[in-house]
Amino acid sequence: MNFDVNYMKMALTLAEKGIGYTSPNPMVGAVVVKDGKVIGKGWHKQAGEAHAEVLAIDDAGESARGAMLYVTLEPCNHEGRTPPCTKKILDAGITGVVFAMKDPNPNVNGGGGNFLKTKNIDVVTGVCEDEAAKMNESFIKHSLTGRPFVILKCAATLDGRIATRTGNSQWITNSLSRRFVHRLRHNADAVMVGIGTVFADDPSLTVRLDNFDGRDPIRIILDSKLSIDEDAKILNLNSGADTIIVTGCKCLETKKTILEKKGAKIVELDEENGLIDIDALMKVLGEKGITSILIEGGSRVSASALGAGVVDKIYFFYAPKILGGDDGVPIFRGPGPDTIDQGIKIKDIRVKLFDDDVMIEGYIN
Amino acid sequence: MNFDVNYMKMALTLAEKGIGYTSPNPMVGAVVVKDGKVIGKGWHKQAGEAHAEVLAIDDAGESARGAMLYVTLEPCNHEGRTPPCTKKILDAGITGVVFAMKDPNPNVNGGGGNFLKTKNIDVVTGVCEDEAAKMNESFIKHSLTGRPFVILKCAATLDGRIATRTGNSQWITNSLSRRFVHRLRHNADAVMVGIGTVFADDPSLTVRLDNFDGRDPIRIILDSKLSIDEDAKILNLNSGADTIIVTGCKCLETKKTILEKKGAKIVELDEENGLIDIDALMKVLGEKGITSILIEGGSRVSASALGAGVVDKIYFFYAPKILGGDDGVPIFRGPGPDTIDQGIKIKDIRVKLFDDDVMIEGYIN
Repeated sequence: MNFDVNYMKMALTLAEKGIGYTSPNPMVGAVVVKDGKVIGKGWHKQAGEAHAEVLAIDDAGESARGAMLYVTLEPCNHEGRTPPCTKKILDAGITGVVFAMKDPNPNVNGGGGNFLKTKNIDVVTGVCEDEAAKMNESFIKHSLTGRPFVILKCAATLDGRIATRTGNSQWITNSLSRRFVHRLRHNADAVMVGIGTVFADDPSLTVRLDNFDGRDPIRIILDSKLSIDEDAKILNLNSGADTIIVTGCKCLETKKTILEKKGAKIVELDEENGLIDIDALMKVLGEKGITSILIEGGSRVSASALGAGVVDKIYFFYAPKILGGDDGVPIFRGPGPDTIDQGIKIKDIRVKLFDDDVMIEGYIN
Repeated sequence: MNFDVNYMKMALTLAEKGIGYTSPNPMVGAVVVKDGKVIGKGWHKQAGEAHAEVLAIDDAGESARGAMLYVTLEPCNHEGRTPPCTKKILDAGITGVVFAMKDPNPNVNGGGGNFLKTKNIDVVTGVCEDEAAKMNESFIKHSLTGRPFVILKCAATLDGRIATRTGNSQWITNSLSRRFVHRLRHNADAVMVGIGTVFADDPSLTVRLDNFDGRDPIRIILDSKLSIDEDAKILNLNSGADTIIVTGCKCLETKKTILEKKGAKIVELDEENGLIDIDALMKVLGEKGITSILIEGGSRVSASALGAGVVDKIYFFYAPKILGGDDGVPIFRGPGPDTIDQGIKIKDIRVKLFDDDVMIEGYIN
């Protein structure tokens, strides 16, 4: 079957419009093409709403008969919140389907494509597969492992300090970098910080962007002793998203009750030496349907997440500033390895400049 | 007068060929142009050898009569190691001179250009001035202040560590980055390290590059107690460049004699708390005709140079590795400021990738 990769690129661009809104579903875009013309477009807007294929086919209307469908993910073949897309494709008289990647869920992987083939639909897969997979890296990890995709973000000086010796950190990075971080929050299902960061900065961890209807992520606070101040901003927000406090302490029922009355959700987990078992936490959060988490510090939480091996991706921002000493707050606190070779390797390095701030992006594993 | 900026760019490219060889002179390139054709080219190859203008005019030969000269620096008007270039220009019958920047030396600044004007030569200045100034930033600083241009280089992990807790640092950065550092050494008049780095790494600090005839820089070791091991590699090299040991100790005459016998030059300076007065040292080194110094660590030397305000430029290499703790060796050791605002600002940030290593270059002041 002949196909044109440019239509898949168009479908990817459409899919991208759903970024930050579709979880726990993936972003998906679809284009219906007939006689070299795009006659229908669609993208998945939000969980519970129509799939991209359905929207694109409806957009094409009756002309969809005999047309080709380009879609960034394998069409579903099972009755979910919506009827299967494979049925929609057949009913509409689509004659060829090109999709970028198979459904990562091992139970349905290949199912939609194979079903369509049995119905004599031409099927091509693997077109722009890498781009499609990168776009939905959180969805894919969660589908395969049941755990969230974890992104570690830090904002440091060139000499690797996230605050001065007095704890001052406003503002290391510039407003363009900070705006990008608000985008990362919007894109993530949840953000996570340690109680130290709540004490030091009293952050809101909401999405605040001009001219953009951002979605607040769930806020997760690691607070092993449940010592959060009930006046903390994070407990007194007007936000559509939950605040989850993760604690290792089973004794302070009164504090727990107070916090729950303020709307916080409490998750209790084993702790060791005051540190919460991050690996176990990821399992719990994944079960809650959280597909991605942005860790925003501080040094101890970052180090324990890294040490627990749960981090998938990093965004390190370096501001054009040097403190020039060793008494500022380091990016990570805790023991490091004996040799460079024992360090953690970061792959697929990409660099982006926000004015004079340098952002380095990369992957672990 | 009409001129074509492309000829100046050609002259700049020619000038660049002298990089690392011309000190204490600047790099200079020159092009002779007649009837829209380049008829002569030259660049300054080494102090004591012919100036770029002379070489370009000689290259043009008799055709230089009536031609234009493009040169990256104002032609000299004084008898030095060679006769003044202004005389050469007049004798050759050049009718127009375009130069990128005036001589930075306040005693001769504008002199060559003005002299040529009095002889009815058309003179244009300021063409590609920024590029010309950047190329000769060391020469310019030394001309204006009598002090060397100081470049601080470090090679760190993404979390800002130049070695692990055990001191292991081989290899943080990759071979492409290390090759670039050897180029930086070649370009500099001198490299400087602390005695701690000599103890830890026993470096040679020579230029070792395949297929490139690099020039070893002078090696400067800060060793306030004159505790260097006489078997240190740096004292037992086959190198055209000197090793200077800077010490604050006036007592160990025997050690001094031993080191001098091995060919080392000793510079004695005041010290405070075991730290050499870097500012005073820069004055002394500038007087010795050293126009540029590359500081290659360690943490204390880097911090004291930065703290003394002598650093002009930085090259920070970040390898795609994370140690993840706070016990590795930091980029700087010593006290830092209370607030981010009190940190040192870095300007004109540029980023270069060496495979997956990220190099950030910038200026102080």
